[in-house]
Amino acid sequence: MFITFEGIEGCGKSTQARHLKDYLEGNGREVLLTLEPGGSRLGKELRKMLLSLENNDLTREAELFLYLADRTQHVQQVIRPALHTGKTVISDRFIDSTVAYQGFGREMHVQTLQNMNRVAVDGTWPDLTFLLDLSPETGLRRALERNMVQNITSSEGRFEAEALDFHIRVRLGYLELASQEPQRIVVLDAAEDQDTVFDRVRNRVNEYMENL
Amino acid sequence: MFITFEGIEGCGKSTQARHLKDYLEGNGREVLLTLEPGGSRLGKELRKMLLSLENNDLTREAELFLYLADRTQHVQQVIRPALHTGKTVISDRFIDSTVAYQGFGREMHVQTLQNMNRVAVDGTWPDLTFLLDLSPETGLRRALERNMVQNITSSEGRFEAEALDFHIRVRLGYLELASQEPQRIVVLDAAEDQDTVFDRVRNRVNEYMENL
Repeated sequence: MFITFEGIEGCGKSTQARHLKDYLEGNGREVLLTLEPGGSRLGKELRKMLLSLENNDLTREAELFLYLADRTQHVQQVIRPALHTGKTVISDRFIDSTVAYQGFGREMHVQTLQNMNRVAVDGTWPDLTFLLDLSPETGLRRALERNMVQNITSSEGRFEAEALDFHIRVRLGYLELASQEPQRIVVLDAAEDQDTVFDRVRNRVNEYMENL
Repeated sequence: MFITFEGIEGCGKSTQARHLKDYLEGNGREVLLTLEPGGSRLGKELRKMLLSLENNDLTREAELFLYLADRTQHVQQVIRPALHTGKTVISDRFIDSTVAYQGFGREMHVQTLQNMNRVAVDGTWPDLTFLLDLSPETGLRRALERNMVQNITSSEGRFEAEALDFHIRVRLGYLELASQEPQRIVVLDAAEDQDTVFDRVRNRVNEYMENL
């Protein structure tokens, strides 16, 4: 089983992914919790390049190709081997981030990005994706608060530094993707409290497992 | 004018590119001599990842996307700005390397690579490309000798370390490309001495300029 979490900055993806890991492990499953960018050894180096504010000369096309390099390495070296040994894999961001951020956010050609995603993952698609939908105003406020607490004001803020209309396009892109693939992508209201959101995640995962 | 040099390791691309730069500057042109991977600031970091023998877990798809990130950044930040100010740009490797190495060498789908090259360069194609054709046996021997002289035995040898049949496929891939685009790609016998090869380069460049 391969589950991904998606959404804008500050939507609570990482927290929900961790909760789900704990829940599934409590039920006796082996779980790999991973993330993009940065899920592989190479990916950790790429993550620095991709999220650093210092890389302010990165073109949108270079950014795209670096994300795809991170993804294909992540799939081939980490995700697929774990799935093959029977683990459940949970990834904080995956293919839909590219379409939402580079396609809708940076206004690149969506069909081209989907074709490139196909080359990068070569058949390893998520079974289930949770889109934690949130208004960009709320998400960015939460992300900035988190960054201040964690003291990551300058090193990992490239997306937080984008204008609000960028994040609005990303959110709408995610919702558009969810409308195209309602079976895979579950939209949850991330403005609700964490426990309520997690109840919905857990129920949907249980429902999916019962129907396997 | 945008001129590229292509060929397998040890074919003498870098030497010929430098000779051409000197020749054109001697004729009063402003010339930018650059290379791939590593022609941009970001590219220098990617070059290390791409050529290091330590990255022995790099998948062919990740390698491809890193080369494309390097290329699009190189085109947008270095090559295109130089062309716009009227400079002649000479690049040691460009689009054809991806088709020859990843397409023919690593046996990835050539049409897919050509589409990705198109996204990466967005219309900035070479006017003239010199393919320095050489048998892989000779090329690898020269490359190994050079590496010993320059003491780069372990840091930049990922391609030299490939098996001979890999380099044979790369060479045939280059010749196939040249047969498809005979107007752009000039095949030269790199087994001849450097001065003879350079005479041919210079003559073809002069012919190209006279017909502008």
